[in-house]
Amino acid sequence: MNPKKPGRRQFLKSGAALAGLAVGATAVEKSIAADVPEQRVDVLHKVGERSHFVDSIRRGSINNPERRSPDEPRVFGLTTPLQDSAGMVTPASLHYVISHGYEPRDINPKEHRLLIHGMVDRPMTLSLEDLQRLPSVSRFHFIECHGNSTAGGLGGSYRVSPDATAQDTHGFTSCSQWTGVLLSLLLEQAGVQKGGTWIIAEGADDYKHSKSIPIGKALDDALVAYAQNGEPVRPEQGYPMRLVTPGWQGINNVKWLHRIEVVDEPYMGMMEVTRYPRLMPDGKSRWFEFEMGPKSVITRPSGGHHLLTPGFYEITGLAWSGGGSIRRVEVSTDNGRSWKDAQLQDPIARKAHTRFTIPWNWNGEEAMLLSRCTDDQGVVQPSLAEVAKIWGTDVDFFRNSTLITSDLNAIQPWKVNRDGSVKNAIY
Amino acid sequence: MNPKKPGRRQFLKSGAALAGLAVGATAVEKSIAADVPEQRVDVLHKVGERSHFVDSIRRGSINNPERRSPDEPRVFGLTTPLQDSAGMVTPASLHYVISHGYEPRDINPKEHRLLIHGMVDRPMTLSLEDLQRLPSVSRFHFIECHGNSTAGGLGGSYRVSPDATAQDTHGFTSCSQWTGVLLSLLLEQAGVQKGGTWIIAEGADDYKHSKSIPIGKALDDALVAYAQNGEPVRPEQGYPMRLVTPGWQGINNVKWLHRIEVVDEPYMGMMEVTRYPRLMPDGKSRWFEFEMGPKSVITRPSGGHHLLTPGFYEITGLAWSGGGSIRRVEVSTDNGRSWKDAQLQDPIARKAHTRFTIPWNWNGEEAMLLSRCTDDQGVVQPSLAEVAKIWGTDVDFFRNSTLITSDLNAIQPWKVNRDGSVKNAIY
Repeated sequence: MNPKKPGRRQFLKSGAALAGLAVGATAVEKSIAADVPEQRVDVLHKVGERSHFVDSIRRGSINNPERRSPDEPRVFGLTTPLQDSAGMVTPASLHYVISHGYEPRDINPKEHRLLIHGMVDRPMTLSLEDLQRLPSVSRFHFIECHGNSTAGGLGGSYRVSPDATAQDTHGFTSCSQWTGVLLSLLLEQAGVQKGGTWIIAEGADDYKHSKSIPIGKALDDALVAYAQNGEPVRPEQGYPMRLVTPGWQGINNVKWLHRIEVVDEPYMGMMEVTRYPRLMPDGKSRWFEFEMGPKSVITRPSGGHHLLTPGFYEITGLAWSGGGSIRRVEVSTDNGRSWKDAQLQDPIARKAHTRFTIPWNWNGEEAMLLSRCTDDQGVVQPSLAEVAKIWGTDVDFFRNSTLITSDLNAIQPWKVNRDGSVKNAIY
Repeated sequence: MNPKKPGRRQFLKSGAALAGLAVGATAVEKSIAADVPEQRVDVLHKVGERSHFVDSIRRGSINNPERRSPDEPRVFGLTTPLQDSAGMVTPASLHYVISHGYEPRDINPKEHRLLIHGMVDRPMTLSLEDLQRLPSVSRFHFIECHGNSTAGGLGGSYRVSPDATAQDTHGFTSCSQWTGVLLSLLLEQAGVQKGGTWIIAEGADDYKHSKSIPIGKALDDALVAYAQNGEPVRPEQGYPMRLVTPGWQGINNVKWLHRIEVVDEPYMGMMEVTRYPRLMPDGKSRWFEFEMGPKSVITRPSGGHHLLTPGFYEITGLAWSGGGSIRRVEVSTDNGRSWKDAQLQDPIARKAHTRFTIPWNWNGEEAMLLSRCTDDQGVVQPSLAEVAKIWGTDVDFFRNSTLITSDLNAIQPWKVNRDGSVKNAIY
């Protein structure tokens, strides 16, 4: 629901419509407003809005380990309402947002510059206009917080609550068509010197968020994006430009990108030192991990949905992998005793959400819905028990820890009860 | 530019932020608002917005043949700002809108029903919930007004003005990923009777817009869409459901779809009788035409853009065809004396916008930029002279007439002047 809409409508009905619209309007808007009756300017929006009956919103994950004290609640991020999703595109207005303390910046694109320097022959400074003159690519890619679908990612017990929705369990992933310039092209122009093995990407936010990224990724498929789903990247996503590191942990996709330094070793920035070393079951930490494993989640029916009557339902969901494209998705309605191949909807893009669908006749009995994907590297999404086995621990470890890791890509079970309610079955 | 943002910010700074936000907020929003500091609720939008530095807007085409008198200006429609586009997706907020007098309806989805009746064995009434239980498809398709890029489409001389932008010349086309149910599946459920050769699709708007469509198209790839780019179809696009007839004239993509009647002949509705018979050069009219021909337009640089300095530029644009997918786009910078193949960006979807790019070094001299596409049927986009020849007339006919036809898919020339200005060269 758009909280502004009712207010605006009321305002327009008061008769002061045109004067109200003219505040802050551009010259073009003014000329249109002067030429057409007020009512039609109201009805035919120059920038359209969704129906006020649509109540899908991003939700803040408030209880998270980053809050400094119980008296200081902080929104760690905003999750995408996957339970309402359709197709492969996430609307920009509902793209997940993570904030580690820094705020979206209100950047004037005319003043913004991207500096490329360090171990390069020709340091460069690029404006948005400069960037838009260069050869571009447009590619669908998901971006996913590597805490997504982990208990640590939502910072507490809600991940394993029976009432958790797909938004609660998996809402820190979103998929857009990003348009921008390959970083490899920029680095080629700058001339990377021998020994330049890492880059430091830094944002223009107040905290100067930075991340160390191996040069191999920078020269592979990373891009400096200025557009998202056909319009300029949104402020919360890094307007006017951001780094996109396809398939890698969200933290690498530096927003409000203003500096890339080529260096000869990773820098131990705040993220590398304080937040992202992951504590393994054996008590040791691992510093660097990047790629998101193959993952899938059924988005309908999913937690919080309610099946009204037995009968036909489509089961649909999303699958993605940091390793490449999705080759196969299997669905089980009997807790893994039997599996059937779901249909994949075109386009199936590399390192992008892929929509899957499969028909299902619900007989009114209890059912346990699972999905399991396989990527084009042949890597299969594991069960939670399989993940635990690999790690030399048991499933309780994942339930109770605030662990954040991109390796936790376990199968998500949704339980359908006889009354039609659908519940999170990780509990 | 978002005219609302500055006002809202000011309001929040006044200290009454939380009270203001709570007006019209849902229970969920209220609970979040109560838990986090006011400032962060403002910063992290639950439904995000674009930067207020972005000034891309739909524009109304005011001077059109549908206005009843000069004293009664009417917005015929709103065009997509193609000159600012990127990739293949049109943001829902910028999707073009055509209104023949009917208004977007504020439909409560719980009350909306789709009736399928006429020459069928089992008439059906479907709610949105019913529809969402059925097998779905998600497909990228353009929708284009068949008056797009014609002088008649914008209703006057502006199509051929040197100052026309790509929005002015071609802005009545947009591309979305549509999710919905194939109409063939619904008709199969209903059981089309022998002799049922057409459908009448009708909307729930005040004017009950209806269109006669051959059963062949209905059973081919037409779909009843409830989602667009990952969210519910926007009100201006037919919320809660619309017909999508891939590749066919926009008029067939009936919005606010509430009735499909299977019949044995086309109905001579208002659109068939009064608006869409096209006047041919020989003075005769043709009643039915459906498929949009292959068309392309360079979106950057295009009319209204300004090249600051000689040197490297990317030329980029969109190509699409109602006949299938785009196989090839060629670009000329010397008014057609030589052509080079542009690169097509994945995904290349059937009956969808395809983004093309090609590098260009501008030497500072006058240049004439053209693009020409070929679809997978081998059909090549013609020049205006070629179109005129086929029609047995000359190019002045198209310049001066208010003709609306899906056959007018001629190559669009943009002239780059020595001062860097870019002008519409159809004049």
